Amino acid sequence: MMDVATYQLLDGRRCSEALKTRIAHEAAEVKAARGRAPHLAAVLVGDDGASRTYVEAKVKACEAVGFRSSLIRLSASTTEEELLALVDDLNRDAELDGFIVQLPLPKHIDPDRITLAIDPRKDVDGFHPVNIGRMVLGQKEGFLPATPRGVCELLTFYGIPTAGKHCVVVGRSNIVGTPMSILMSRNAEPGNCTVTIAHSRTRDLAAITRQADILIVAAGRPEMIGADMVKEGAVVVDVGIHRIEDRSRKSGFRLLGDVRFAEVAAKAAWITPVPGGVGPMTITSLLQNTLKAARG
Amino acid sequence: MMDVATYQLLDGRRCSEALKTRIAHEAAEVKAARGRAPHLAAVLVGDDGASRTYVEAKVKACEAVGFRSSLIRLSASTTEEELLALVDDLNRDAELDGFIVQLPLPKHIDPDRITLAIDPRKDVDGFHPVNIGRMVLGQKEGFLPATPRGVCELLTFYGIPTAGKHCVVVGRSNIVGTPMSILMSRNAEPGNCTVTIAHSRTRDLAAITRQADILIVAAGRPEMIGADMVKEGAVVVDVGIHRIEDRSRKSGFRLLGDVRFAEVAAKAAWITPVPGGVGPMTITSLLQNTLKAARG
Repeated sequence: MMDVATYQLLDGRRCSEALKTRIAHEAAEVKAARGRAPHLAAVLVGDDGASRTYVEAKVKACEAVGFRSSLIRLSASTTEEELLALVDDLNRDAELDGFIVQLPLPKHIDPDRITLAIDPRKDVDGFHPVNIGRMVLGQKEGFLPATPRGVCELLTFYGIPTAGKHCVVVGRSNIVGTPMSILMSRNAEPGNCTVTIAHSRTRDLAAITRQADILIVAAGRPEMIGADMVKEGAVVVDVGIHRIEDRSRKSGFRLLGDVRFAEVAAKAAWITPVPGGVGPMTITSLLQNTLKAARG
Repeated sequence: MMDVATYQLLDGRRCSEALKTRIAHEAAEVKAARGRAPHLAAVLVGDDGASRTYVEAKVKACEAVGFRSSLIRLSASTTEEELLALVDDLNRDAELDGFIVQLPLPKHIDPDRITLAIDPRKDVDGFHPVNIGRMVLGQKEGFLPATPRGVCELLTFYGIPTAGKHCVVVGRSNIVGTPMSILMSRNAEPGNCTVTIAHSRTRDLAAITRQADILIVAAGRPEMIGADMVKEGAVVVDVGIHRIEDRSRKSGFRLLGDVRFAEVAAKAAWITPVPGGVGPMTITSLLQNTLKAARG
């Protein structure tokens, strides 16, 4: 008898499409009510290829749901003061509901200083300390960081139970791992998990990850998680995305996650693909945050 | 052969005394430099006995290190608007470095609304979302919540290594458990732990707590942690404090923690007593935060 795959896909494209249908409907309502559509601006400093790809995908997503979008491109030699002046303009622009400054920034610009300068009410990336604090405190007014919010939406869409489960988060970055661990532990739906946060200083990582009913990997290391690190029947969410050179492909590269998909899928109950898992959810969350900003 | 106790005490009183000596020295420096001592105000609404005891202990601690202190007592019938007006006055009082509004507040006052109204630069309890967010982001400008900061200071004072250890935090409150889990996981000293946060929805809590190299209990349930839930050689920090009626004592009560001290001490390498463990550290952290506010 042959082995048959028993896993089910946590399909971020499918989930995104469903959510975007609703977002488009609500955007039309906002437009009808106040005479203009939700409006997101994205600021891109320099010409990093991956950053440009991400920003362009965000702009395209805005168009697909009937948002207005603005793409502001600045040269890599833009000074911190110039960028702060732009942020100040965007904060005061009454025609703009939210904006993002795409990271990473050139080394001569302090990203913390830029983030702090953004009006928290327009911080649809959810990176400002006041929005992070509101997330920790479970206050509804703020914006959740886009990727962790997207993972929550994906779990909800597929009806994955979380209460009482052991969730292991690998990675402690400010924009993914740490907020993810907070959201999964809080008294909410999804949430109510026992949460373990692991990172580069964790000893015997496999012994930790094998305890996970829900394993969320945001470590930024290609294919670091193998089948031996995953419990049978786990829900596996792979936040990683890496371009690996591959001359056998027309594009010259292929995309890998932090998880070895084929071998882990054979043990998992649910798993995200890369691409097409968390990636589309991040952009959809950004649209949801912008819609929330537009509703005031 | 008789068993001998091998544990060592994480003595919060001793650690506090050492830290307060330094705080008093620095307070004198501040006073010499700008002509007035650090000044903390505490607002107490209503006449809850435990709250009064805490507030009075804070005022007394201020005096001991040469701070100025103000105790503002309001009746239990104070309205939310009246309390907000007072907060506004305190925010603008140039003679005041920091202030706290003692929790819990009467039920007709929304504590979130009060906390949000406090100027983050005077929020020496570290409860404002912007200070919580700064803690998550590892930014140095803010104030850490007093109890988690106190636990960190205690671990540092006794030279407890934390990097790479598995820290289990029991309890997910906004003011202790959740910030504690964040501080222990971040890339700092103390910190760099693999951290598990457990709470009322956790299944098989004992299987989780037995993994802890460092066990921090802030669950608010008297003596819930027994020896069977603790690994041999663990470091055990008990944040709980409960008044239990005891007619055999002159005071009429005795104090218990969340940990069964005698039986857990027999297995632990280090353990906090209750009282005299975390309690004094919380007040000392408040003094440290006030000193930081006074230094600007």
